[in-house]
Amino acid sequence: MKVVESIGEMVALSDAFRREGSRIGLVPTMGYLHEGHLSLVRESVARGAVTVVSNFVNPVQFGANEDFSTYPRDFERDCRLCREAGVAIVFSPSPESMYAADRSVLVEERALANGLCGASRPGHFAGVCTVVAKLFNIVRPDLAVFGQKDAQQLAVIRRMVRDLDFQVEIIGAPIVREADGLAMSSRNVYLSDAERVQALGLNRVLAFAAGQVRDGQRDAGRLREAMADFLAGGYPGVEVDYIAIVDGATLLPQAAVTGGTLLALAARVGRTRLIDNLTLEPGTGNL
Amino acid sequence: MKVVESIGEMVALSDAFRREGSRIGLVPTMGYLHEGHLSLVRESVARGAVTVVSNFVNPVQFGANEDFSTYPRDFERDCRLCREAGVAIVFSPSPESMYAADRSVLVEERALANGLCGASRPGHFAGVCTVVAKLFNIVRPDLAVFGQKDAQQLAVIRRMVRDLDFQVEIIGAPIVREADGLAMSSRNVYLSDAERVQALGLNRVLAFAAGQVRDGQRDAGRLREAMADFLAGGYPGVEVDYIAIVDGATLLPQAAVTGGTLLALAARVGRTRLIDNLTLEPGTGNL
Repeated sequence: MKVVESIGEMVALSDAFRREGSRIGLVPTMGYLHEGHLSLVRESVARGAVTVVSNFVNPVQFGANEDFSTYPRDFERDCRLCREAGVAIVFSPSPESMYAADRSVLVEERALANGLCGASRPGHFAGVCTVVAKLFNIVRPDLAVFGQKDAQQLAVIRRMVRDLDFQVEIIGAPIVREADGLAMSSRNVYLSDAERVQALGLNRVLAFAAGQVRDGQRDAGRLREAMADFLAGGYPGVEVDYIAIVDGATLLPQAAVTGGTLLALAARVGRTRLIDNLTLEPGTGNL
Repeated sequence: MKVVESIGEMVALSDAFRREGSRIGLVPTMGYLHEGHLSLVRESVARGAVTVVSNFVNPVQFGANEDFSTYPRDFERDCRLCREAGVAIVFSPSPESMYAADRSVLVEERALANGLCGASRPGHFAGVCTVVAKLFNIVRPDLAVFGQKDAQQLAVIRRMVRDLDFQVEIIGAPIVREADGLAMSSRNVYLSDAERVQALGLNRVLAFAAGQVRDGQRDAGRLREAMADFLAGGYPGVEVDYIAIVDGATLLPQAAVTGGTLLALAARVGRTRLIDNLTLEPGTGNL
């Protein structure tokens, strides 16, 4: 496995892989890898792709009051995990090489990015689209794997790929959870023991909602209300940012739960912002 | 020479060229080709590149009150000229295949695009960046040739390539002029005989300004005033939109004319909007 910091070297290595006929898979990460990230790597490796993991805490997708400076980092451990998982290259550019001081170009998605997390994180998805466009142009992968945990991000990236004709197959991989159900996140490390217990509410309320839907509830407004009550009753430490019941592809609100409905929520537990979601698919037992 | 309308076919042809080791050159055009366009094609062909000319009147870069619907078109003649010039592929997608009805992604340059033509054509350069990003992703050229006549466009594209890491060499080609000095433009066809005479003012005032600079004038404010007077006196049919004296790379206003100064102007002659420019380089006789 190679660790590459230079953009030019990454471009040259990608060119060489392509010339020898390899397919290239990209897994964009901000490091501090957990099983969720590694499942994305395995997805790429299983498809026979030479796999590049980018490890870059992207300053442009953090808001001024967000946790860019404290975002957890453990580069040595990340590299070890990548090596064990069969990664070919860890691409870890410096912020200075990625962003010129007078940078002035942004890639903006203006429909899917507005609601959900976009409402409380202005500029976040423009930062995500811009860095992913850059990574696509540097690595020029045949496929890229993103986690379904960031469901809005995945929908926004799919839209960017469609609208800008990136020749990259986007693969969404299932959420990986801790044994007790908490969705894996690099930010879970911020949680105190008491907060860790409260944080389970995100997973539990999705399971509760799936049960309500299984029992016949289809009205999105009533379902959302029941979910809010469930959290307020059982998980008072969970401060809800949003509970969204939307179409999984367009992220437009749905009045009634149908197939392809995305239940997504974001909440603060203490000072940590967490997200989780569940897609209701007919025939999967939850619809 | 092949005429390709399908995006998928264009992607596949580009892949095939790349696999056989060819370099690919892209010349983006809106058709109605003239000698200026053909000089871009010759530049690409001379570099040994398999040359793709895109022929696409891009609706997204036209304002609501601009000339999208009347923009001149002659596809048969364009194809004949391309064949004669050694073009490998004319890529001519439909607007519907380029832009989904619910498209929502834009590439925006937010520094260089604000002044000059950007001031009176809001959204124009976002439309240009977006379509060029799409063409880059579809054709994946090694090089792309743009005319220096659209000096602001060239600077904006160079910035986009730098900031988004497109692996495309951008080549700026000199302005091609009619025998009497008028910069070639597809829009020249709009001019009546009387307007055609007035339109010469754009070239003449640049020559006048170069003479002023040769004679020692370095003050940008006075030079601009002298240029405005020159036009008002000799070419009353030229209604100036702007006369800009800026750094050629950053497009920032310069107080004093130095090397790399771009003199650029835009004006209406009748209902036709025309642009022209001149770069003052030390040692080229005009500085």
